[in-house]
Amino acid sequence: MIVLGIDPGITNMGLGVVEQSGKAHRLLHARLVKTAHSDPAPQRVGEIFQNLRIVIAEFRPQAIAVEEQFFYRQNELSYKVGWAMGAVFIAANEWGLEVYGYGPMKVKQALVGYGHAEKEQVAFMVRAILGLKENPKPTHVADALAIALTHLFYLGRGGGNRI
Amino acid sequence: MIVLGIDPGITNMGLGVVEQSGKAHRLLHARLVKTAHSDPAPQRVGEIFQNLRIVIAEFRPQAIAVEEQFFYRQNELSYKVGWAMGAVFIAANEWGLEVYGYGPMKVKQALVGYGHAEKEQVAFMVRAILGLKENPKPTHVADALAIALTHLFYLGRGGGNRI
Ligand SMILES: [Mg+2]
Repeated sequence: MIVLGIDPGITNMGLGVVEQSGKAHRLLHARLVKTAHSDPAPQRVGEIFQNLRIVIAEFRPQAIAVEEQFFYRQNELSYKVGWAMGAVFIAANEWGLEVYGYGPMKVKQALVGYGHAEKEQVAFMVRAILGLKENPKPTHVADALAIALTHLFYLGRGGGNRI
Repeated sequence: MIVLGIDPGITNMGLGVVEQSGKAHRLLHARLVKTAHSDPAPQRVGEIFQNLRIVIAEFRPQAIAVEEQFFYRQNELSYKVGWAMGAVFIAANEWGLEVYGYGPMKVKQALVGYGHAEKEQVAFMVRAILGLKENPKPTHVADALAIALTHLFYLGRGGGNRI
């Protein structure tokens, strides 16, 4: 089972591809997509879309999992994370992939065992599960890998929050 | 000059194509794209994207104008309007089109002459400018046509709010 995890954003978007075989997990690919604030929105969302297409075409994930946060203080931020999600959905639809969403507490529950764990504990677990020598960086990529592993965790329990 | 006006939304998306030649304005096309709440998000955003592509391919607008609202009470609503905007940006990028955004007050200023005009006055002006026998319906389509005319108004004054 190969999952593409995504920490969605318009300026920084973390992508992480993880493969599970049996109980083993392996990091296949990690990438940070950055777009310039000074570029027009169609170009920025277009770049995100192209990166998604390239990663999906190369690693052929069987599902996409994204981090969803609804406690954004600013509506404008929610709106712009939505732009990036539009690109995720169109790429997913193009490849016939289902998209799953998990909030930060679900990630902490899955990887650390309780919903109020520290971010450092999540990063430590991602590193341990994937057998990495160092914590994955930058944080958006670490978040993307955590989301992919979170989806595999809930999937293994017959669940998963499809959006 | 042909402009595609859009009232963005994930459940209801209004599209209106308007042509200006000299001082005359003509309605070329109007469409309401509805998606089902019960369908997965990739399918819904995919349907919006396909409708945008079809309308752009048929009417070849030279610009896209969208209604932008930042006073959403709910972050989740802003987020989902963002999903639809992602589709707009990807379609725009595909066709090399610029996207312009205007808030409700800018629409009222452009079409009625003052920013606190009633919605009915905006609808009346859309009908008058386009020479329609009735007010355009439903409201999402009327809003899309108003946005297209708003863009032409600001463009004629050398402006336009590119996003
Ligand atoms: Mg992050």
